[in-house]
Amino acid sequence: MTEKEWLEYLKKYLWTKPPVVSAFNEDCAVIQAEEGKYLLFTTDALIEGVHFDLSYTDFYTLGIKLAVSNLSDIAAMGGEPRWALLTLGSPKPLEPEWIDPFMEGLVSTLERYSAYLIGGDTVKSPCYMLNLALTGETDSPLLRSKARPGDLIFVSKPLGESSAFLRYIKTYPQTEVPANLKKAHLRPSPEIELGRAIRKIAHACIDISDGLLLDLYRICTASEVSAEIDEDKIPLGYGVTLQDALSGGEDYALLFTIPQENLKDLERKKTKDLYKIGKILKGKGKIILKTQRGETREVPPLGFDHFTFRPQP
Amino acid sequence: MTEKEWLEYLKKYLWTKPPVVSAFNEDCAVIQAEEGKYLLFTTDALIEGVHFDLSYTDFYTLGIKLAVSNLSDIAAMGGEPRWALLTLGSPKPLEPEWIDPFMEGLVSTLERYSAYLIGGDTVKSPCYMLNLALTGETDSPLLRSKARPGDLIFVSKPLGESSAFLRYIKTYPQTEVPANLKKAHLRPSPEIELGRAIRKIAHACIDISDGLLLDLYRICTASEVSAEIDEDKIPLGYGVTLQDALSGGEDYALLFTIPQENLKDLERKKTKDLYKIGKILKGKGKIILKTQRGETREVPPLGFDHFTFRPQP
Repeated sequence: MTEKEWLEYLKKYLWTKPPVVSAFNEDCAVIQAEEGKYLLFTTDALIEGVHFDLSYTDFYTLGIKLAVSNLSDIAAMGGEPRWALLTLGSPKPLEPEWIDPFMEGLVSTLERYSAYLIGGDTVKSPCYMLNLALTGETDSPLLRSKARPGDLIFVSKPLGESSAFLRYIKTYPQTEVPANLKKAHLRPSPEIELGRAIRKIAHACIDISDGLLLDLYRICTASEVSAEIDEDKIPLGYGVTLQDALSGGEDYALLFTIPQENLKDLERKKTKDLYKIGKILKGKGKIILKTQRGETREVPPLGFDHFTFRPQP
Repeated sequence: MTEKEWLEYLKKYLWTKPPVVSAFNEDCAVIQAEEGKYLLFTTDALIEGVHFDLSYTDFYTLGIKLAVSNLSDIAAMGGEPRWALLTLGSPKPLEPEWIDPFMEGLVSTLERYSAYLIGGDTVKSPCYMLNLALTGETDSPLLRSKARPGDLIFVSKPLGESSAFLRYIKTYPQTEVPANLKKAHLRPSPEIELGRAIRKIAHACIDISDGLLLDLYRICTASEVSAEIDEDKIPLGYGVTLQDALSGGEDYALLFTIPQENLKDLERKKTKDLYKIGKILKGKGKIILKTQRGETREVPPLGFDHFTFRPQP
């Protein structure tokens, strides 16, 4: 099944009636708890040999990445993270040598954003298999489906650094990787403060975890719009190619759309530098890239494919 | 690390301050949401080759078992299950052939108890790796730590049938397994109605998932009491040995303690046949078995050990 077929398939099994606001096609499930109060609920797994390799990552980093991949989903909904459960599958006995740095990385990252580990399950497993389930809350969930023609498109970080790190260590195994790429891949951070700041002024939002093009495409299909982005406005860090930025994974940046009339509010509320990269157009799921020479062309929404169950369109 | 060491170790990382009522040593994490309203949060994984084997189980059964192992944790707290997220790790592409029966088993079991699947994560994995995170609610959480000397001890099902099933298929691979054992292992059910009925009249409660002795020992250590059980009062199904009943796993029965003065209430409220097997004594974590000949002896709390990370005491 392609990702599209899988999401279509899941509709049969996911509960989508009230109080559920959104059960799929979002970064988190959203449930209306009461007037103006929404429960967010997300889960994300890291599997050894699929999402990471112990040759270039360590257990402290894994703890951080497990926390960030889940926190970033809450950030994309404009939410505050709350309670976390860890499922820890390990092929080895629980020994402080590896469990200490893992728990330190996980819990310190969660607590930095006022999220707290309160339980879990520990199992034997043929490889390291890390899963976090995280709840959150918000008074105003940011959905993917609310982009409107005329909205401006922003991203919150230089893109592609995390996937450029993987390209570097594969292509130049003997060379020191640029520090910015290392940091992006091994010490990512979630945009909780930014999500909070824009939750009532942005229209649509997603966290870029599978690449700019693919995640922008998800906003476009959910909102039934198209988008145009300027090649030369896409923020690239040192050592990053345009390809890394367009289709690399694990950026954990926010990609959001905002109407022109809210730009002043954005300027006032923003918590960091932001990058305006394009605008939302009428249409249905087309991504137009404006090249540096001023030409425009439609680009396929190719993203980072580490899930064989999520073949890219 | 032994289980005891692991729980001790986790104290450093789990958040235990209010509004968290219980973060470990319980079937679920318990958070006080408001006066008289508690959030329950649990997660449980099934790993191929560790918790199940596709030679004797099928995907429909796996869906049921994943639901029941989590629902049973909510039942043990006197809770109502609510929202579920599935993490589905698979070595094979998502094809209807196996995913259909799995999802049918999972979702039909959840919905029978008014729990609803609202999202999840799908990943590639070297083996089937199934994790559910489930929330619940209750107005009165049943804890392990509230047993008092003089309480009577009840269980809610004949015990040992599920583990006797595994013993049968291993010892007599060519023989038809008795139907009651098959049902207990492959079509378990959680005690949601019973948990609801006893939540305000029982003192302490746990779901028996790792064997009667071990789970009773957990109540005794959490409550700082001892217990005496009558060998001939322990309900055994057809084909079950005393050993299966004392130390087998995956019963998903409730084991609870209740003061004498609430027995009339129990008789009125109970939703099914119950088995009185013994009583709580003063002491600290001793389990006394009264044999059929009237002799008493202390027994070690040996349980079903499919977690190598949870070596039994």
